[in-house]
Amino acid sequence: MNRPFVIPFHEGRLKMKDLLGGKGANLGEMTRAGLPVPPGFTITTAACLEYFEAGRILTEERKREIAMALSGLEQEAGKKLGDPRDPLLVSVRSGSVISMPGMMDTVLNLGLNDETVEGLAGLTDDPRFAYDCYRRFIQMFGDVVLGMAPYRFEETIEVRKEERGATSDTELSAEDWKWVIERFKEEVERETGNPFPQDPVDQLHRAVLAVFDSWHNQRARIYRKVHKISDGLGTAVNVQMMVFGNAGDDSGTGVAFTRNPSTGEKALYGEYLINAQGEDVVAGIRTPEPIAALASRMPGIYEQFRSICRRLENHYRDMQDIEFTVERGKLYILQTRSGKRTAHAAVKVAVDLVNEEIIDRETALTRVDPEQLDQILHRRIDPEAELDVLAKGLPASPGAASGRVVFDADIAERLSHEGQKVILIRPETTPEDIHGIVAARGVVTSRGGMTSHAAVVARGMGKPCICGCGEMEINLKQKEFRVAETVIREGDEISIDGGTGHVISGSVPLIDPELSEEFQLLLKWADEYRRLAVRTNADNPADAAKAREFGAEGIGLCRTEHMFMEADRVPLVQAMILAETVEERQKALEKLLPLQKEDFRGIFRTMDDLPVTVRLLDPPLHEFLPDMEELLTEWTRLSMNPDADPQELREKEQLLRKVRSLHEMNPMLGHRGCRLGLIHPEIYVMQLKALFQAAAEAMAEGVTVEPEIMIPLVGHVNELKEMRKLVDEVASEVQEESGRAIPYTVGTMIEVPRAALTADEIASVADFFSFGTNDLTQTTFGYSRDDAEGKFLHHYIDHKVLPENPFVTLDTDGVGKLVSMGVELGRKSKSGLKTGICGEHGGEKQSIRFCHQTGLDYVSCSPFRIPLARLAAAQAAVAERKEPEPVGESV
Amino acid sequence: MNRPFVIPFHEGRLKMKDLLGGKGANLGEMTRAGLPVPPGFTITTAACLEYFEAGRILTEERKREIAMALSGLEQEAGKKLGDPRDPLLVSVRSGSVISMPGMMDTVLNLGLNDETVEGLAGLTDDPRFAYDCYRRFIQMFGDVVLGMAPYRFEETIEVRKEERGATSDTELSAEDWKWVIERFKEEVERETGNPFPQDPVDQLHRAVLAVFDSWHNQRARIYRKVHKISDGLGTAVNVQMMVFGNAGDDSGTGVAFTRNPSTGEKALYGEYLINAQGEDVVAGIRTPEPIAALASRMPGIYEQFRSICRRLENHYRDMQDIEFTVERGKLYILQTRSGKRTAHAAVKVAVDLVNEEIIDRETALTRVDPEQLDQILHRRIDPEAELDVLAKGLPASPGAASGRVVFDADIAERLSHEGQKVILIRPETTPEDIHGIVAARGVVTSRGGMTSHAAVVARGMGKPCICGCGEMEINLKQKEFRVAETVIREGDEISIDGGTGHVISGSVPLIDPELSEEFQLLLKWADEYRRLAVRTNADNPADAAKAREFGAEGIGLCRTEHMFMEADRVPLVQAMILAETVEERQKALEKLLPLQKEDFRGIFRTMDDLPVTVRLLDPPLHEFLPDMEELLTEWTRLSMNPDADPQELREKEQLLRKVRSLHEMNPMLGHRGCRLGLIHPEIYVMQLKALFQAAAEAMAEGVTVEPEIMIPLVGHVNELKEMRKLVDEVASEVQEESGRAIPYTVGTMIEVPRAALTADEIASVADFFSFGTNDLTQTTFGYSRDDAEGKFLHHYIDHKVLPENPFVTLDTDGVGKLVSMGVELGRKSKSGLKTGICGEHGGEKQSIRFCHQTGLDYVSCSPFRIPLARLAAAQAAVAERKEPEPVGESV
Repeated sequence: MNRPFVIPFHEGRLKMKDLLGGKGANLGEMTRAGLPVPPGFTITTAACLEYFEAGRILTEERKREIAMALSGLEQEAGKKLGDPRDPLLVSVRSGSVISMPGMMDTVLNLGLNDETVEGLAGLTDDPRFAYDCYRRFIQMFGDVVLGMAPYRFEETIEVRKEERGATSDTELSAEDWKWVIERFKEEVERETGNPFPQDPVDQLHRAVLAVFDSWHNQRARIYRKVHKISDGLGTAVNVQMMVFGNAGDDSGTGVAFTRNPSTGEKALYGEYLINAQGEDVVAGIRTPEPIAALASRMPGIYEQFRSICRRLENHYRDMQDIEFTVERGKLYILQTRSGKRTAHAAVKVAVDLVNEEIIDRETALTRVDPEQLDQILHRRIDPEAELDVLAKGLPASPGAASGRVVFDADIAERLSHEGQKVILIRPETTPEDIHGIVAARGVVTSRGGMTSHAAVVARGMGKPCICGCGEMEINLKQKEFRVAETVIREGDEISIDGGTGHVISGSVPLIDPELSEEFQLLLKWADEYRRLAVRTNADNPADAAKAREFGAEGIGLCRTEHMFMEADRVPLVQAMILAETVEERQKALEKLLPLQKEDFRGIFRTMDDLPVTVRLLDPPLHEFLPDMEELLTEWTRLSMNPDADPQELREKEQLLRKVRSLHEMNPMLGHRGCRLGLIHPEIYVMQLKALFQAAAEAMAEGVTVEPEIMIPLVGHVNELKEMRKLVDEVASEVQEESGRAIPYTVGTMIEVPRAALTADEIASVADFFSFGTNDLTQTTFGYSRDDAEGKFLHHYIDHKVLPENPFVTLDTDGVGKLVSMGVELGRKSKSGLKTGICGEHGGEKQSIRFCHQTGLDYVSCSPFRIPLARLAAAQAAVAERKEPEPVGESV
Repeated sequence: MNRPFVIPFHEGRLKMKDLLGGKGANLGEMTRAGLPVPPGFTITTAACLEYFEAGRILTEERKREIAMALSGLEQEAGKKLGDPRDPLLVSVRSGSVISMPGMMDTVLNLGLNDETVEGLAGLTDDPRFAYDCYRRFIQMFGDVVLGMAPYRFEETIEVRKEERGATSDTELSAEDWKWVIERFKEEVERETGNPFPQDPVDQLHRAVLAVFDSWHNQRARIYRKVHKISDGLGTAVNVQMMVFGNAGDDSGTGVAFTRNPSTGEKALYGEYLINAQGEDVVAGIRTPEPIAALASRMPGIYEQFRSICRRLENHYRDMQDIEFTVERGKLYILQTRSGKRTAHAAVKVAVDLVNEEIIDRETALTRVDPEQLDQILHRRIDPEAELDVLAKGLPASPGAASGRVVFDADIAERLSHEGQKVILIRPETTPEDIHGIVAARGVVTSRGGMTSHAAVVARGMGKPCICGCGEMEINLKQKEFRVAETVIREGDEISIDGGTGHVISGSVPLIDPELSEEFQLLLKWADEYRRLAVRTNADNPADAAKAREFGAEGIGLCRTEHMFMEADRVPLVQAMILAETVEERQKALEKLLPLQKEDFRGIFRTMDDLPVTVRLLDPPLHEFLPDMEELLTEWTRLSMNPDADPQELREKEQLLRKVRSLHEMNPMLGHRGCRLGLIHPEIYVMQLKALFQAAAEAMAEGVTVEPEIMIPLVGHVNELKEMRKLVDEVASEVQEESGRAIPYTVGTMIEVPRAALTADEIASVADFFSFGTNDLTQTTFGYSRDDAEGKFLHHYIDHKVLPENPFVTLDTDGVGKLVSMGVELGRKSKSGLKTGICGEHGGEKQSIRFCHQTGLDYVSCSPFRIPLARLAAAQAAVAERKEPEPVGESV
């Protein structure tokens, strides 16, 4: 295909997004729809990729095409770039295919030079405005194109302000800006060895290349990594006629959402600043007015804008995020795109749009990112809790969090890697802080509004965020903030409530969320579409009940070892392990039996009428004993102490000997799973007795039970054969005793490669397979998760040795291949074989999609991931039915 | 197919072995060839399998068929079973498809009862002979059919001998045996509640079933496990007219090999006993005379026997093991089969038979079990050593061994499991001792000859054995033996030389074997047939030289970590690991470089003109540091000692901290292999520099080098990409410095499942794959070998959960599937990809066969396994060319 390199806006269309980028495509679409968009043209992603491939060189051919497009723009605008009397000024902005807000560079007011600035001044009869534009242009060009540090310019302005006794930029006069401009130009020449470029076409070329280059800047790379965007897409560049929100008090600029991006409420939501350029809003340097205030300030403009918003939303069939500028009483639309939103808002907007008959249900299902649902489901502050509220800011992103205060993104990242919960506190955030926001549980800024960088980014990530909390006096050097008399230092604990904007001292109790009507409705729709069943991993009645509430259709993994680990049972379990004879062990097991039976009975009751998959004991026995290292230290100490109690020493020694005898070089690959059941069948027999007795008793209460007994870590069909025999023996014993026929099935985890490779043999004695993809990932890669994540996995992911963390997102090429093979071989040998997944991947959307495609029967995940799984399963099914629409979140 | 259930000998043929068992088929074949075989019939394996399937019931149909065959036999013999005047007596013997000497049961002299014994006495005019036969029959029937403990009968005989003042059985008279028989019958009635069965047909049926049942006795099961024989074959039963070697001094019985089974020398080899039954020879109770002595005792018989031996050997085209009996001057052949032999003998016989034009080379290659070669290759006692010879016995199985003395098979097994070397000492061995012989390094008996149980079994296993060492007075109760004044107690160390029959005090120096001309010739033939190349695993010039001598065609695995582990280097390696800065580490690495370079240079010199595969550092770094547990104890002690040197304490603490930071939960799955190379490239750079510099220097000396750089533990193609870049960088650096173009290739181990599953991707950047099946077995099964073998693997193998130890014999169903997949995917992506195996399986015959079938290019194994691998590779190739002949070792 011959992909064009430069396209004027009026020729652009939304479906050309891959070529034009999101912004360019939207500008084209809006222009064609007759909206008041300043004219311009797009230099396409094809040109960007060509530029990188050619070794960062812009060919003469492209320069000619840009010149042609520029000449077209000049005709539309009725002005010429570099015309000293009536100069055309342009903005040069990045526009990638997938939105990356604020990650790449922009140059505004391009076309100004020592000559044209005079023309602008004369034409507008506003020299102050003209010089202000010029100095802004030099600043941005210096930063973006010439690579100069912004503070060099800021210092000059501060000097002038001080001289003038001014507290804000607006107090500086045209003459002040002229003085500033001279200093700026000197600074540029000193720094770069060349005078500030005066040729507007040269300015344009250099700005375009700088924007291309910004595709590969560090913050853009990090953003893409976090949001899983390919590095190979490249960015388009939009060159557009400048309009000026800073042309006086009949001018202004703003950003608005067609619906509330926090709540989804159908009402214009946004902010504007009088006499300002767009950067002033986004950067959060001045705190803007709410959009509603525009109704009284400029009623005509407000009505026109509202009408345009409605049109745009209907056109794009989604909530829009619109940038606009008013230049001397005329409204321009600079950009529109699907608005980022909280999960709450995403759900409400999707459901509302269906009710308003703008989209259908299938589309609605694709409009909510399952990963976002965490936000809705996660806890909020207990309303009963007594809060020591320190300060209140703007509620910029909902949810609550507690953590230690940090003032620096790097420190936030480091502490988070060490496992600490942190809250990042900044005067304002910039794209450079992105890794700190990723690492933090929540963000608080003292400046900026609801659409500031921090707010937008935090909402996207579903993290609580409070912005513009002016009461906070932040002292970065002292690493503390002060609210009135209270001083909070780095490391102190605070809590934040992104829903109310409250900053609270200390950590506070959090409670479970309630789920909105729209949320329930959306999940109901999801259930209609999905083919995968969704079960839960739950080891106790409370978790099981919570999961059922979230829509779980059964338990896919009930880990019986968690029952062993409860404080009151550990001594019994230890006595069982330390038993020297089978009789002693039997005695300890008999004491455990009634406890375990009660556990099972509670679970059966809760899961009445639903299947419950119970995995028999899996971890190595030494996990229930004291740590060898500690024990060794204790024993060494005791043995050196002449006053030590000899009895105690002897006991310690005995325990140490046992712990040592059970110690393993590689417990992950050691004596665990069904290997325990084969060597110590008495343990499994106890568990099975408890299980079947509980089932019989539950049945007696009228409960419908559906136990599925799962044998862990099977690698050879003979292991399952032996264990199945054991299950059947205990089952018939209990059935005889209780006089009840208990319906049960027996299956296995598929969690070592050999099980998948010989799934046909194993299926011959299994009723179901449950893929334990956590362990399967460990054995397939040869990674010990405990060791890998601390030692090399981060490096692997950071350096793209691996595309993803395979413990988070299922590695379809390797582990997935085994899963597919397992399903295929298993079904070949037993057509009705039930298959599911119970690793953590069962609650991750990409992995769920894989499970759908592979034809599994169900996924099982932790209770709070169940809504996510229901939605992700529906999306996988919808994706199979139709290609996704060209509009949506990603525009 | 309609498989017959009963077949008379004259209808049997060798090729019916599956049906008739080895013994039955041979008896048939011999009968048809006109040899003097006592008449009889075979109840087939089909009947045996039917019997087990029917729940151990012999159908009426089968009884009728047996009756018909019996009537045929009676006609041939001219006698009738149960005829009180001239009774037919028969032997009832097992005969399985694959020979299992002494493992199953036999009943002789069947047909005797209170009436027929009188007939026999009258007919032979030898009442003593008749009553001796009858008491022997009751004894054997009691043991085999009625399940009575043999000592009950032995005691009765001892009582009578004491009464008579007799020291041997031969001193007892007819009246004595009559008295003994009455006591025996009383004993039977007391024990079983029934009188001793008098109906000969009933006797026959019960004996046949007992032999069937003996297929599943414990010693037979163990034997089959050791020799990898299927449990599903079943045994045939041969019913044959008795002839009597114990009919007087013109009678006798013996066993002879057509060639010497120890050396392969072409000369009759065997033993006979005058006036005895076969059991007396095999059981080793009386020490027999050498076969040569027969020439003077019965010259006619000897000549007839020699002629028959030649005929049988030509007929069966292999060395034969023949049982014969002389009854009153008439020679009968009772059995022939391919003779068990030492590896030395197997090689010599195979080569000699080719030279004698009896077999072809291909057949010769199949006549030696590769696993046996260990015997030839293993060490013998240094002839220079001063030996403290305690005693001398018969040299029953060659080879030398040292170990601790044990007197009990169970104890031998236990100590061997604990890793101790043991020598089993017994007065004589019985099939009940088989597990002790398996466990021991060597066996000594004080009684029995060269064809006694101990001798036959030990030769089969290739273990040194000394028999009939009468000087030894064994006291089982005291657990000691005495030779003259010397007492050796359980746990004392001795050495034995199975080639000389010497029992030596203490352990002695052993030396490498020299290889016979025949051995070299056979291996040369092997090389002509095999398709697999054979390389060696060697980490130093000495091993490499030894391997080259054995025929290695290159190094398939040079493990560089062994170079790090030499005593003088450990401090340097530790300094490198403990370095706090990259500079410090660099310094330590620079000191290691010249040492490692010398290692490589030596290896290149030794392997001039052959490929050398060098694996870069593989184990986790903590393997080079002190053990954490020890360190912790030391530190705890120091920290409690008020007089401890604070400097030492600090250093210890620092070391402990480092060791702890490197500590891993599952080192097998941890930070090792190329994961080290990716995080600490400086280590690999040093190794590569050393390697390439050594190659350049060796080339300067005129050596032809062919280095193959192998990256360990690759699981994702990107790992290999990164490492390949590193190799190429260092290579071009050294090539530039040295001015030499070094030919090298880069490949990877395939040792985690993911590598095999994505072999197509990995092959795109690899020149070769080497399957590391040790680790691949660990990860595919999810077994840590260190833990599994101590904790559950023995149980798994003993209880047939696994058919084999997968660390010994490649698991073709699981691990093998990954290997096949790896080869297939790899070649699909790169057709010229070189593939090999370097796990221990590369030196195991079944696994080598798998490698051949899978189309690998080479196997690599330890130096001493190379002849085995050459032979096994040839056998795999021969097996592909033609079906194996119906004669050979297994007849």
